Amino acid sequence: MAREPKNYEHLIGKIKGLSENQLRNHFTLYQGYVKKLNEIEQKLGTVDKSAPNYSYNEYSELKRREPVAYNGTFLHEAYFDNLGGEGTQPTDAFKNGVVQQFGSWDNYIADIKAACGSAHGWVLTCYGYADNKLRNVLVQSEHHVGLMADTHIFVAIDCWEHAYFMDYGTKKPDYIAAVLASLNWTVIGDRAKQSPLGHQKP
Amino acid sequence: MAREPKNYEHLIGKIKGLSENQLRNHFTLYQGYVKKLNEIEQKLGTVDKSAPNYSYNEYSELKRREPVAYNGTFLHEAYFDNLGGEGTQPTDAFKNGVVQQFGSWDNYIADIKAACGSAHGWVLTCYGYADNKLRNVLVQSEHHVGLMADTHIFVAIDCWEHAYFMDYGTKKPDYIAAVLASLNWTVIGDRAKQSPLGHQKP
Amino acid sequence: MAREPKNYEHLIGKIKGLSENQLRNHFTLYQGYVKKLNEIEQKLGTVDKSAPNYSYNEYSELKRREPVAYNGTFLHEAYFDNLGGEGTQPTDAFKNGVVQQFGSWDNYIADIKAACGSAHGWVLTCYGYADNKLRNVLVQSEHHVGLMADTHIFVAIDCWEHAYFMDYGTKKPDYIAAVLASLNWTVIGDRAKQSPLGHQKP
Amino acid sequence: MAREPKNYEHLIGKIKGLSENQLRNHFTLYQGYVKKLNEIEQKLGTVDKSAPNYSYNEYSELKRREPVAYNGTFLHEAYFDNLGGEGTQPTDAFKNGVVQQFGSWDNYIADIKAACGSAHGWVLTCYGYADNKLRNVLVQSEHHVGLMADTHIFVAIDCWEHAYFMDYGTKKPDYIAAVLASLNWTVIGDRAKQSPLGHQKP
Repeated sequence: MAREPKNYEHLIGKIKGLSENQLRNHFTLYQGYVKKLNEIEQKLGTVDKSAPNYSYNEYSELKRREPVAYNGTFLHEAYFDNLGGEGTQPTDAFKNGVVQQFGSWDNYIADIKAACGSAHGWVLTCYGYADNKLRNVLVQSEHHVGLMADTHIFVAIDCWEHAYFMDYGTKKPDYIAAVLASLNWTVIGDRAKQSPLGHQKP
Repeated sequence: MAREPKNYEHLIGKIKGLSENQLRNHFTLYQGYVKKLNEIEQKLGTVDKSAPNYSYNEYSELKRREPVAYNGTFLHEAYFDNLGGEGTQPTDAFKNGVVQQFGSWDNYIADIKAACGSAHGWVLTCYGYADNKLRNVLVQSEHHVGLMADTHIFVAIDCWEHAYFMDYGTKKPDYIAAVLASLNWTVIGDRAKQSPLGHQKP
Repeated sequence: MAREPKNYEHLIGKIKGLSENQLRNHFTLYQGYVKKLNEIEQKLGTVDKSAPNYSYNEYSELKRREPVAYNGTFLHEAYFDNLGGEGTQPTDAFKNGVVQQFGSWDNYIADIKAACGSAHGWVLTCYGYADNKLRNVLVQSEHHVGLMADTHIFVAIDCWEHAYFMDYGTKKPDYIAAVLASLNWTVIGDRAKQSPLGHQKP
Repeated sequence: MAREPKNYEHLIGKIKGLSENQLRNHFTLYQGYVKKLNEIEQKLGTVDKSAPNYSYNEYSELKRREPVAYNGTFLHEAYFDNLGGEGTQPTDAFKNGVVQQFGSWDNYIADIKAACGSAHGWVLTCYGYADNKLRNVLVQSEHHVGLMADTHIFVAIDCWEHAYFMDYGTKKPDYIAAVLASLNWTVIGDRAKQSPLGHQKP
């Protein structure tokens, strides 16, 4: 059954520093990914699989682009879902995990800013099940480049030009500051709760 | 603390169709990724984060290559760990999940083969927490290209040329057949057990 | 000796449909690439080359990012250089080459529009010395992805979001129309003159 | 009209250090790229261009993979064409260009070796028309990643695992040494002759 895009209208006017125009254009892009994910999944259901090929084949290209539409869909949802939280506070479990890994909360924020300054793409705070570490991950160049295997995403920040260019042009650090001030730490804490991080003793 | 590469000597002679020479060269490559992951993590601990940059900066490049070494390490472990299982059988939970998603076990195997024929890279059977689907995912061109967000890896098949070229040259389908015959379904079942798939009713 | 960015101030107010704000932000990005190309070239002059490595090494990363800064520099110059030409006309040699390859001028323009609709990146009309064909090429995901070997660039159109998002948001086709109306066919004709295309009989 | 793969049978037995088995498997891969380039070009002739899309569309994917098959074809031809030249000597024009850019011939060879050690892919000595420099370029991860705009290829060395893994396994430096000893400097000199480099005074 086809997936429906989520409605994020409630964010309009609620994120200090992101204009209605910027947000509406962003929603349009997100909806495009959902539509394409549906189309790809549907085509994969009936495509001929008998002659896959590295250079070009219909099945092969559908599979090659599936993670682009998939991540374009779910990373945008992770981003919009963790915005609009001005005034919320990090949970103790998340804060403790951060301090344990980065040394301090300030180090963690500094690392996010450095990661955002490096990426045309996504900056994601992820928990890696393979080595039980918390990391800021850069997904960049395309939505499916840079993810680490077996990780769980807690924080998602969109650093593509489409996320801020209308409001900020090349002043990306100001955009990052606006996003950081709007992060919904309750949502983020809930995500972390499902991982081993949520069960760590303070 | 530096991570040590795991020892996979016990696989030698145990995988029908993979020579000692092919396996030993593969182990060497894997060990190189572990070493580089350690080096990258260590350098990230002290690197200057004040001038990140999309085009080039020491911090930015360390972050850009971190997922390459990370996945080069843990996908190889996932691969070697799920080999050498001739004679093992898929668990009911895994089999049921497969049938529910692919229609039949044969469809699933056909999809793996098509995915392997498309990829220079990894073919991974993954569980996606965002949409609760089981998929074969292509990681290709580099170890960090193609992963889907918030997924758990159950099956890992190495389709890079280094995995088979010594023994098979361009006869990749024969290599895939050898790997499929050697998959350790007990290990795979254990991985699936940790996901919602493991809790599905038959 | 360090390369200086070219001055494109004269374009401001001259391209119908591109605002001063959009252009000035674009110039800033271009200047960043020139600066980084200089930095990379300088560092490559003294870097230790004794331990190159696929996963991570200082020399290896400088070489990996060199084409990003190089193309970020010269593709932007190719783009700004072929703008601001409202009213100019394609040369006969270029027009003939186009008709020979695409069937008609309209087919060529339709192909440019389709290529622009596909790319987050560059659309380039290129001449390939290997097969003597004229093609629209997509460079996308990063500045160094998609180029064909031994080609000469005649037309350069910037389809990155930074090129138009301020003025157009998701209305990319309107931006493409503005660029097409502003192409400087005299500059493009001069580029083509240096290739075998320039010597073709009408 | 469909392109035919070139016949490189004459190289068998002529390159010290590359076995017949290794070469024949390599020829098979090359022929696959030619075949796919033909298929892509043919499909592009009739494909619907009305709904191009970044995430997925038939036209968009054909264009995205066209440079893979194109470079997979012509870089392999550049490689096989410049092999089998044991005993040939660099032309003065090429040698002078190298010394001017790299300081010495030995520096140039050291840079090739470092580039080969960094790449899973191609190492190409290229002349850049934009800045009149000679560089070793890394094309890696896929055949269409890393090329610089408006460049002419003089030397092509295949560093993909398929080029050497059969004969050398992880001992890539030994393979590089074999290729360097087999380069056909007469062919390379002829390529350079067509560029401004060929017209430089010693």
